[in-house]
Amino acid sequence: MTKEQYLLIEGYMLSCMERDTAHDKEHIYRVLYTALDIAQAQEAVDYDVLICACLLHDIGRREQVENHSLCHAQVGAGKAYAFLRQNGFPEAFCVHVRDCIRTHRFRSEDSPQSIEARILFDADKLDVSGAVGIARTLAFKGQHGEPLYSRTQDNHISDGAGDKTPSFFQEYKYKLEHIYDKFYTERGAALAQARRSAAADFYNCMFAEISDSCDKGLEKLEAHIK
Amino acid sequence: MTKEQYLLIEGYMLSCMERDTAHDKEHIYRVLYTALDIAQAQEAVDYDVLICACLLHDIGRREQVENHSLCHAQVGAGKAYAFLRQNGFPEAFCVHVRDCIRTHRFRSEDSPQSIEARILFDADKLDVSGAVGIARTLAFKGQHGEPLYSRTQDNHISDGAGDKTPSFFQEYKYKLEHIYDKFYTERGAALAQARRSAAADFYNCMFAEISDSCDKGLEKLEAHIK
Repeated sequence: MTKEQYLLIEGYMLSCMERDTAHDKEHIYRVLYTALDIAQAQEAVDYDVLICACLLHDIGRREQVENHSLCHAQVGAGKAYAFLRQNGFPEAFCVHVRDCIRTHRFRSEDSPQSIEARILFDADKLDVSGAVGIARTLAFKGQHGEPLYSRTQDNHISDGAGDKTPSFFQEYKYKLEHIYDKFYTERGAALAQARRSAAADFYNCMFAEISDSCDKGLEKLEAHIK
Repeated sequence: MTKEQYLLIEGYMLSCMERDTAHDKEHIYRVLYTALDIAQAQEAVDYDVLICACLLHDIGRREQVENHSLCHAQVGAGKAYAFLRQNGFPEAFCVHVRDCIRTHRFRSEDSPQSIEARILFDADKLDVSGAVGIARTLAFKGQHGEPLYSRTQDNHISDGAGDKTPSFFQEYKYKLEHIYDKFYTERGAALAQARRSAAADFYNCMFAEISDSCDKGLEKLEAHIK
């Protein structure tokens, strides 16, 4: 890829970004850097496709935020294809990038097929692992005004497992804790494993801080309320 | 305090709460529980004043959000005094609670004088320490669409120290890292120290994850852009 092409694609990506802590331009660059790391351990990677797909993988987010029935991966795939074709990139290249973007979503059944699509998928998932994954999830919860945790029926702090209402602890138990065995590439899985304890340690510390204080506090409060 | 009085004050607190992950009702309960813990190590604490001041300490937040020139501590102090007087609490009690709320703010020069005011101050500060403090700060950044970090002039990841623009790393270096020696009570300081490494470990892990990936990624990217 030429410098000119890179700047063209990067500029389009930047024009599609919103004020969104968890999905800002730095998320895009982290995914790009991680993808290049994973690619190094693979053979016959088309770097132009990979770099382009990483830069454009989340350009459909605005549409999904405005209309929740839309999938940002599908919208982004279509937008990327149209943009690249309009700017003279070959049909096969545009189709390949489109497929990578369409299949990058975690909760989708449309799984990534090419090595470039799998690297993008793993690199995007790595940004949900470790401390970075915790940070982005908390920012997302704050953006949507969701609580850090819920209470159990007997008024203690729920650890999140089996919760029906959204919260940070619920998302940790439902998603973040389980992503570590869902990678396509060995390098992706290894990078995730190296970050795993940072996320688990944080969750455990936070749960202990809150739970200890609540258990003792409820007792003490009862002693002062007649 | 009677159960009826507690429920009256709690109900008023709940009516003042907004959808705000970092400052929701669970923040209020955490501060209350922590205050009761700190109070146990003190003599001659007026528990009615303390419980009331904890419950009502953030009821002025909505006004501050709507008008940034207002201080939520001052607004909340006035609202609490008016509410308590209207509900027949004695003048001296209402004044004492008002003073506790007015002086609970970290960035204020109006420092807490009574033991109850100092316990509230410390308990509120404890909710900025440890993993809970990290979680609330990240939720706040997400709510306001601020980034996790900034770049240095040479395009690497800034650790936040000396940054001029707001970000999570900037807030960590400017505030979170330095709160541990700013407590009035020994018990408050000890509780904060016990949580200190959870916050530091998280920040260090997150900075390492992002910084390593960025440093290597920028080099690799250069190799693929002609």
